[in-house]
Amino acid sequence: MIEKDEFEAIVRDQVPLVGGFGISVVAIGEGSMVLTMPYRDDFVRPGGTVMGPALFGLADVALYGAVMSAIGRVELAVTTSITINFLRRPRPGPIRAEARLLKLGRRLAYGEVSLFSVDDDLDGPVAHVTGTYSIPPDAGRGPAGRIAPGDAVL
Amino acid sequence: MIEKDEFEAIVRDQVPLVGGFGISVVAIGEGSMVLTMPYRDDFVRPGGTVMGPALFGLADVALYGAVMSAIGRVELAVTTSITINFLRRPRPGPIRAEARLLKLGRRLAYGEVSLFSVDDDLDGPVAHVTGTYSIPPDAGRGPAGRIAPGDAVL
Amino acid sequence: MIEKDEFEAIVRDQVPLVGGFGISVVAIGEGSMVLTMPYRDDFVRPGGTVMGPALFGLADVALYGAVMSAIGRVELAVTTSITINFLRRPRPGPIRAEARLLKLGRRLAYGEVSLFSVDDDLDGPVAHVTGTYSIPPDAGRGPAGRIAPGDAVL
Amino acid sequence: MIEKDEFEAIVRDQVPLVGGFGISVVAIGEGSMVLTMPYRDDFVRPGGTVMGPALFGLADVALYGAVMSAIGRVELAVTTSITINFLRRPRPGPIRAEARLLKLGRRLAYGEVSLFSVDDDLDGPVAHVTGTYSIPPDAGRGPAGRIAPGDAVL
Repeated sequence: MIEKDEFEAIVRDQVPLVGGFGISVVAIGEGSMVLTMPYRDDFVRPGGTVMGPALFGLADVALYGAVMSAIGRVELAVTTSITINFLRRPRPGPIRAEARLLKLGRRLAYGEVSLFSVDDDLDGPVAHVTGTYSIPPDAGRGPAGRIAPGDAVL
Repeated sequence: MIEKDEFEAIVRDQVPLVGGFGISVVAIGEGSMVLTMPYRDDFVRPGGTVMGPALFGLADVALYGAVMSAIGRVELAVTTSITINFLRRPRPGPIRAEARLLKLGRRLAYGEVSLFSVDDDLDGPVAHVTGTYSIPPDAGRGPAGRIAPGDAVL
Repeated sequence: MIEKDEFEAIVRDQVPLVGGFGISVVAIGEGSMVLTMPYRDDFVRPGGTVMGPALFGLADVALYGAVMSAIGRVELAVTTSITINFLRRPRPGPIRAEARLLKLGRRLAYGEVSLFSVDDDLDGPVAHVTGTYSIPPDAGRGPAGRIAPGDAVL
Repeated sequence: MIEKDEFEAIVRDQVPLVGGFGISVVAIGEGSMVLTMPYRDDFVRPGGTVMGPALFGLADVALYGAVMSAIGRVELAVTTSITINFLRRPRPGPIRAEARLLKLGRRLAYGEVSLFSVDDDLDGPVAHVTGTYSIPPDAGRGPAGRIAPGDAVL
C-alpha cells in the first residue's frame, strides 16, 4: 500500500524534527514495517546511551508506517496514545524498530513496536511500545502534506 | 531540593536533543514542577500543530523535574515507562507542562503530567501523560553529568 | 445526565461479575463520578489487601459512570483501553473511586480515576487509572441492557 | 521453575476472586505461560461477550505465571502496572492467554499477554496486555500463601 521511497519522503518532509533523524525503511509487510535510525551525537546522554525522546520518535513513525502499509497513505490519521516501556540501556549506536499491527479496525488501529540496538540485539529489545492510531472516517489516499504521525487526536 | 537554575542547566547540558528545546522552569513545589517550552519551527507539522515527540520530550523532563523536586538531584534515576494520550491538537505555540508525583516510593516514583497550549488553555489539556521513574538504591545528590531523564531502565 | 439510582441499577443488572461487588454512587458531576465499593471476603489476598482485579473492575465502572454523567446513557459505549498503576497496598476495607473526564470528544472519551482506601486515604491513592472509551456515532439514550463497560471495542 | 499443578493451586487457593475463575495451565516455558479460562455465566454481558474485569484477571495471572516460570515462586512479587487494550469483542466462550516476558531484570519484569477467543482465534487477539511486576530484592522460593498477583506495589 506504500513504498519505501514514498514513506521515507513523508517522514523526511512532513515531520521536521523526527524527519531529521535519518530514519530509513528496511522492510514493509502488510500491517508491518521495519525501520532503522542511525546514531546522532545529540541523541547521546552522559551515561552513553540513546535518549528516550529519540526512541519515542522512531517508534511513533514505525507504528504509523505499519498503519500505512495496511491501508495506504491516509489523511489525518493521528496518534491517540503511545505507551513506551524502557527495558535495557541501548548502546550509543543505531536502533532498529519492528512494528506490527495487532488490530486494524474501521476507526482505530492498534499495534506494537519492539526497538533493538542494532549492534547488540541478542539481549532482546531495548524498549517495547504499544500505540493506537485514529483513522478518519474517509480514510484513503490523500494529498501530500496531510500525514500526521504524533499529532493530537480525540 | 532543586533550584530553577540548576534544573534548567541539567536539561540544557545533559540531554542534548531536548536540551535544545528551550525549556524553562515556571514553578517548583515539593513533588511538582511546571515548565514551559517555546514554539520552534521544526516542531510544526503540516496541519499546523506541535508534534508528538516534542510533547513527549517536554513531559518526560517535567516528570523528572518533579522527582528531583522531591528527592534532589539523583544519580541514574531513569524513566521506566511513559504513557501519553493525545487529547486535542495544540496550536503552533508554546506548551506548558504541569507535573506532579502521585507516589514517591523507595524504588519507584509515579506521576502525571498535563500539557496545555499556553495561548489557549481554557479547553483543557492537549495531552495527558503518566510515567514511572526508577530510583536507584543509593539515591542522593550525585555529580553533574549523571542525570538520566529518558534513559533505559529495567 | 444520569441519576444515582439509574446508574447503580445498570451496574447491578447489566454486569453480573462487577455488579455483585456492591458498588454505590457517592456523587455525580458533569463528567465526574465518585463511587464506593465495600470490602468482600473474596477480595482478600494472603498479605491482607484488596486484589487487583477488584480494583480494576471498580475503576472501569467509575470511568464509565463519568462518561454517562456527561452524555447520558449511551448504547454500546465500550472501553478501548485501561492502564492501572498500583501505588500502595490498600487495607482490606472499602475503596473509593474518584473518576473525571479529561476529554470528551465525538468519538473517544478519556479520563482518570484515583482509587483510595476509605479507612486511610491521607497517604494518597492506592491506584491510579487512565482509560479511553469509544463512543458510538449515534450516541444517545438507549434501551436498558445495552450498556457496555469493560466490553471489547476497536 | 514451577509446575502446572503448583501454579494452579496458587491461583485457586491464594487469590479467591480470580481463583474461582477455573483457570488452568496449558503450557509453561522459561519466561512464558499459556492459560485457559472457561466461560462462566456471570462473565456475560448483555451484548453477549466476556467482560473486561474477567479478561484483566486472567491476563494478570498469566503474566505472574510467566514471571514464576522464569524465577520460581517468589515472595511478594507484585503487579506495578497493567495496560489492557480491548481489540475485538470476545465470544461468550473460553479464553486463552499467551504470556511471555520481554525483560527479566533484577528488580522489574516486563511482559505481554495476548488473549484469544478459543472458539474463534483466527481473527487475532481479543485483547493485548502489557504489564510490569516488581521483584523483591530477596526473590526466591518462598512459603505458600505469600504470592501476590494483582497486589499493590510501589
